[in-house]
Amino acid sequence: MSAAATSSNKPPPSKDHHVHTYSGDAFPLGYVVGAVHAGIKKKAGALDLGVLASTADRPCAAAACLTRNVFKAAPVTVTAELLNTSGGRARGFVVNAGCANAVTGKKGLEDAWTMSKTVSSLLPPLASTSASEQPGTLVMSTGVIGQHLPIKNITSALPDVTSHLSSSPNAWMNLAKAFMTTDTFPKLRARTFKLGDRVVRMAGIDKGAGMIAPNMGPPQPPHATLLGVVATDAAVAPSALQSALNYAVDRSFNSITVDGDMSTNDTILCLANGAAGKVEDEGRESAGAAMEEIQEGSAEFGVFKEELREMAEELAKLVARDGEGATKFVTIRVKNGPSYEVASAVAKSVASSSLVKTAMYGEDANWGRILCAVGYTPLPEGTIDPTKVSVTFMPSASCADSTPLKLLTNGEPEPNIDEDRASVILQEEDLEVLVDLGAGSEEARVWTCDFSHDYVTINGSYRS
Amino acid sequence: MSAAATSSNKPPPSKDHHVHTYSGDAFPLGYVVGAVHAGIKKKAGALDLGVLASTADRPCAAAACLTRNVFKAAPVTVTAELLNTSGGRARGFVVNAGCANAVTGKKGLEDAWTMSKTVSSLLPPLASTSASEQPGTLVMSTGVIGQHLPIKNITSALPDVTSHLSSSPNAWMNLAKAFMTTDTFPKLRARTFKLGDRVVRMAGIDKGAGMIAPNMGPPQPPHATLLGVVATDAAVAPSALQSALNYAVDRSFNSITVDGDMSTNDTILCLANGAAGKVEDEGRESAGAAMEEIQEGSAEFGVFKEELREMAEELAKLVARDGEGATKFVTIRVKNGPSYEVASAVAKSVASSSLVKTAMYGEDANWGRILCAVGYTPLPEGTIDPTKVSVTFMPSASCADSTPLKLLTNGEPEPNIDEDRASVILQEEDLEVLVDLGAGSEEARVWTCDFSHDYVTINGSYRS
Repeated sequence: MSAAATSSNKPPPSKDHHVHTYSGDAFPLGYVVGAVHAGIKKKAGALDLGVLASTADRPCAAAACLTRNVFKAAPVTVTAELLNTSGGRARGFVVNAGCANAVTGKKGLEDAWTMSKTVSSLLPPLASTSASEQPGTLVMSTGVIGQHLPIKNITSALPDVTSHLSSSPNAWMNLAKAFMTTDTFPKLRARTFKLGDRVVRMAGIDKGAGMIAPNMGPPQPPHATLLGVVATDAAVAPSALQSALNYAVDRSFNSITVDGDMSTNDTILCLANGAAGKVEDEGRESAGAAMEEIQEGSAEFGVFKEELREMAEELAKLVARDGEGATKFVTIRVKNGPSYEVASAVAKSVASSSLVKTAMYGEDANWGRILCAVGYTPLPEGTIDPTKVSVTFMPSASCADSTPLKLLTNGEPEPNIDEDRASVILQEEDLEVLVDLGAGSEEARVWTCDFSHDYVTINGSYRS
Repeated sequence: MSAAATSSNKPPPSKDHHVHTYSGDAFPLGYVVGAVHAGIKKKAGALDLGVLASTADRPCAAAACLTRNVFKAAPVTVTAELLNTSGGRARGFVVNAGCANAVTGKKGLEDAWTMSKTVSSLLPPLASTSASEQPGTLVMSTGVIGQHLPIKNITSALPDVTSHLSSSPNAWMNLAKAFMTTDTFPKLRARTFKLGDRVVRMAGIDKGAGMIAPNMGPPQPPHATLLGVVATDAAVAPSALQSALNYAVDRSFNSITVDGDMSTNDTILCLANGAAGKVEDEGRESAGAAMEEIQEGSAEFGVFKEELREMAEELAKLVARDGEGATKFVTIRVKNGPSYEVASAVAKSVASSSLVKTAMYGEDANWGRILCAVGYTPLPEGTIDPTKVSVTFMPSASCADSTPLKLLTNGEPEPNIDEDRASVILQEEDLEVLVDLGAGSEEARVWTCDFSHDYVTINGSYRS
């Protein structure tokens, strides 16, 4: 893995080190991917249409976490229907950036179906499966709401995509670029781990910079807060895959916020094609004997679930780090809460405060705003005892002095806060605020970014 | 009333016409007010400490709506205690700007009591009331959180304030200025109306530009979202005054939002001293026979309640108009909702969206973001039917063409939206978005402002 981007659209130098490149054996077996510029994004040559297809002969298990917005975008509706009718199976997905195909009425729905069916018709049918049982192609779109897709551009470009699908690292990177809208860098991660007697691989892509808000509802079914996919060559039963995805999304994508706006298009997909080789035979050329699908409750399921959570956390943090206009990556950690839910609610309240986020941007140690946001967390009266709350700035790893800087202890402000030290801590790119509720032992973390002039610039003229 | 400000700290020319000045007979009888620069604000000469006292011999009825933030500022705690122990009576209030005296621990509480008691000791005792029953002075503070008041400056300056109290229009305007923090203009309004056989008057002052968020909780007791006071010379029983204030606050201050941050200091006070003259004897020099206190349920109570609501709405809209960095005043009107609560929740969701607010700032007709925010209103599933929702831009009164511009009708986007017309409408200072839920007959309005570069500038360096 190296930190160099190979893109012609270079990310800003400060974000360069978040772009990871991988060698060919890092990616899951049995997938081919590709992307082109179809003219959906205005910028010439910008990749805006991508496809991922499984080459395994049996249909992939597939799971999704989808937005709960009442105005579900057409691709969300189509993806949900495909998964429902297939019992959690899919061939792959098609994604476009530049137009969300959201609030586009009946025509939007037709367009999303056209995208899905065109890709399915261009891929060779699975020999193992009858013509009527061929699994469908899931759909994701991101970009401007309320405009129709340039569907002719898309259908014209799709044969070019599907005829050049590849498993190369470059193809994976291009697919990640086809997800990008206001993102400043492509978000691609890969990992390899042992699952029983298999070596399995997992690749993840996501995008998201604005219209990012955490899930405030119950965990089933969670909504995701961005567009993302994790593809693995592990074999996992569809119901187990959905369960693992719900668990992972709640602890990752549902724990980030950029601007509090829950999108119409939020989609996290997870695909598992079972193409992984055996441990003793893990060369890329060898697919080994077919792996049996993991079921919920097994030891392998526990391992897979945690690996998926870690991958999802890594991808989710990239979104917070690349929040629109972000100059800081901010972790809000709340410890000693009476429950995970309370700790998480407090962390989300602080992470969502415009005043906290602008103070972080201004590198202003205005910690009163942190307290204020702790105090207005919507919780039953009496849940938080203000005389037991402590707040501390945690210096980032690159600070010379790693001593935590206490601001408030048991509701009383520290008598002589070292403002110079606070200022040094706030100059770092990575900031961490620790809130101790003094009321239990549960901990939650939420990741966000600061709120800058550029956020306003980006969103004041997004369409133009 | 004229539109000219008499301030040395002139508001920006564009806000000039929101500063109203009044003749002496516009203000309620039986109150004296004043303000000085005590050195709490850094700027030399900026008024930052004010007092209002009733000169009526009987104690004022007093009511308050206070923040629900867990971290209640010291002045909020003191005001609540004074009202609780007196059964809703007060002598007047003291207010300071520049330091919120919030999250300041035990010393903060002592300081707030010192402010209150110092003013009480400086005012002549009421002859009608025994020494132990003298009503107290309520306290309000606004400014930076987490710093101690410069209490010596305040106690030194208070005799100067109380020895120069006056009922002049200039004194009222100065009191309004002593409320200001990031406000760009002082917010003072007065009105006169008939109540039974009396002519009564009402004066209102408020402040607020940031840390403004609506009440999401149940209406009893409402929290207010800013600092404000309404003083009237009507006589109203304390319980009736509290009831009228709750009603008014819910439909005014609880229906505005600037940045979604609920303050530690939110306080709306209402004082009623009963000094109004009779209709046939309404000269300022004559206080007439003592007016009997209005009780809840009477015809006069209904009139008073509506007058108070109108005053509160007028004051609340000024806060949205003067939101930190605001260049637009935005009304979100939601009609044909199944209930007031649903209509209000949808309006608040749209009014709170950073993406809607930055689009308004950029004069970008990105109406998809409006839809998106309607769609993520936290409501039980099925409450909103996306196929019945319509969205329209309402041109402001100063637009040449007053025809509403339809964007979405029954969930389908209008086929050919006139973008040039949308652009003309969005160039106005006053914007109105109409959302029709097509699901009932209830209506709610929420007032907000746009989200500009200046918001970030103001809040990225508030303390420096």
